Amino acid sequence: MSRWCIGVDLGGTFIKFGLLGADRQASETLQLPTPVNEGGSGVVSQMVAGVRQLMETHQVDLTDVVGIGIGAPGPLDLAEGIVIAMPNIPGMENLRIRDQLAEAIGRPGVLENDANAAAYGEYLCGAGREARDMVMLTLGTGVGSGIVLDGQVLHGAHGIGAELGHMVIEPGGELCGCGQRGCLERYCSATYAARHAATRIEGGEASSLADVLASGGEFTAKDINEARRAGDELAAAVWDRSAYYLALACVNVCRIFDPDEIVLAGGMTRAGDDLMDPIQAHFRRLHWSLTDPMTTIVFSALGDNAGVVGAAGVAWQSLEPDALDQI
Amino acid sequence: MSRWCIGVDLGGTFIKFGLLGADRQASETLQLPTPVNEGGSGVVSQMVAGVRQLMETHQVDLTDVVGIGIGAPGPLDLAEGIVIAMPNIPGMENLRIRDQLAEAIGRPGVLENDANAAAYGEYLCGAGREARDMVMLTLGTGVGSGIVLDGQVLHGAHGIGAELGHMVIEPGGELCGCGQRGCLERYCSATYAARHAATRIEGGEASSLADVLASGGEFTAKDINEARRAGDELAAAVWDRSAYYLALACVNVCRIFDPDEIVLAGGMTRAGDDLMDPIQAHFRRLHWSLTDPMTTIVFSALGDNAGVVGAAGVAWQSLEPDALDQI
Repeated sequence: MSRWCIGVDLGGTFIKFGLLGADRQASETLQLPTPVNEGGSGVVSQMVAGVRQLMETHQVDLTDVVGIGIGAPGPLDLAEGIVIAMPNIPGMENLRIRDQLAEAIGRPGVLENDANAAAYGEYLCGAGREARDMVMLTLGTGVGSGIVLDGQVLHGAHGIGAELGHMVIEPGGELCGCGQRGCLERYCSATYAARHAATRIEGGEASSLADVLASGGEFTAKDINEARRAGDELAAAVWDRSAYYLALACVNVCRIFDPDEIVLAGGMTRAGDDLMDPIQAHFRRLHWSLTDPMTTIVFSALGDNAGVVGAAGVAWQSLEPDALDQI
Repeated sequence: MSRWCIGVDLGGTFIKFGLLGADRQASETLQLPTPVNEGGSGVVSQMVAGVRQLMETHQVDLTDVVGIGIGAPGPLDLAEGIVIAMPNIPGMENLRIRDQLAEAIGRPGVLENDANAAAYGEYLCGAGREARDMVMLTLGTGVGSGIVLDGQVLHGAHGIGAELGHMVIEPGGELCGCGQRGCLERYCSATYAARHAATRIEGGEASSLADVLASGGEFTAKDINEARRAGDELAAAVWDRSAYYLALACVNVCRIFDPDEIVLAGGMTRAGDDLMDPIQAHFRRLHWSLTDPMTTIVFSALGDNAGVVGAAGVAWQSLEPDALDQI
């Protein structure tokens, strides 16, 4: 008889569902649309439907389910299992998401921040599988982060830690939505790399990307990399700037945590060596000379599934930590 | 019958000795000069003599001693209990300091980095007594740091973590002895604040401190504060710069760790409110607006005794963690 935890990864567009065994093997995932116009009860109903469908597809009995882990964007009250708000979905305010799902299914639930869940997924089953201490940076709209130290997810004393995207890395620098100036994410997230390129083009610098802007379009980090590969100098400078600040962030992560691994995730990492090579070059140059670099920088192994795997992993860790196979 | 751990704090000038009970009560400390010209064996002999003298003074039997914790400056091999080198004391290379002391006394030993030991001392018995998560910054020649999360001292995967003084805080900034540019300690340690003031005066800026320099003397952070209080504008600017960068470091510590408390220690903190007031003002201004500040910034409560208390505490934690009274 196999026993499972169920992971639920709640996003603004899709809800993902998956199973994780104590042997750290994950099932294929199921994906359903997020009902963004049906409030908290609609979201919970869709989660209940997805969990039931997942169990049916994989012929899992309720007695074989240890518990359900939910990964969700913040702000959350983790201890109480409550979504305080979800900016992209109206009607989620103060939703008792953990207990509502747990009661509907009849198994215990655990709530975790989505960035932490993704980091824990990589730690258990992905790029951090061999690591004891691991830091993950996800390069998306902003820079999300999750920190796992000796198997424990770092939350902070008030549940607002592990926000490495809001480390101040350029004092007095660009104004961030959080109210600070010079936050890391303003210098290397996919969104802000593209915005920085647009600002420079609007300021009069020449670039093959100017045509896109002139026609009212927007471009992405991927477009910047393609323009760079085709010889565009502005694109090369903007791409290198992101790599530089990411490398600087990695140096600081080494000084602070000295982890086994730093895992980079998110859309920008699809650029592969085009991103990793300049990060590694800057990292070696910026790193102190007191020791050689000992922390490895790698890309995510689970990609978009890290969150759902990690949500299930968080349930294992919370409900039956000793059951998880040790590596 | 009381049981004790013995703490030994090895510095470049003095070795300190003290007792700590499981009730977190510390004895008066004993201080002996560090025999800097007698190599590793001389240092170990002095440590043995100090431990015996301490036990005699306090009438402690060997059977009442749980173990001995040693705090020493790095680089150390903590797992093996070895001092790799001590720049200020010749002949300390690869010294098996932990086992040599433990064997001479006849009780088990534990070795810890001195900055970590000091942080653990504040955590157990000082300013961090009520905290679960605590970060300490010591403002001396450089900026030392120690991090205690949920009662555990953070070492990193390779024993080189918790070096917050070497977080890069000004990319491309001043060259640090570690080989990096823009390290925190170059912007706010006591030594570098004084050096920065001297550089500006040598560059032609007017200051009441110029006379000290002209006569071949050196001044300290304390002199800068006194000149500032007497109305010296350069001194005021330099003092405020240190407070600014310390506040920035505190903001980053909140984003990374979200601790209950940040404890500031070291000679500069003797300035009291003259240092705390501008740090708090900058901190509130630089802190994100997503939440009010939840982390408290306080000064060390144990002062120069934090290291010896923490060394004894590390021995308790390592040898009999459950014996320590819970707060």
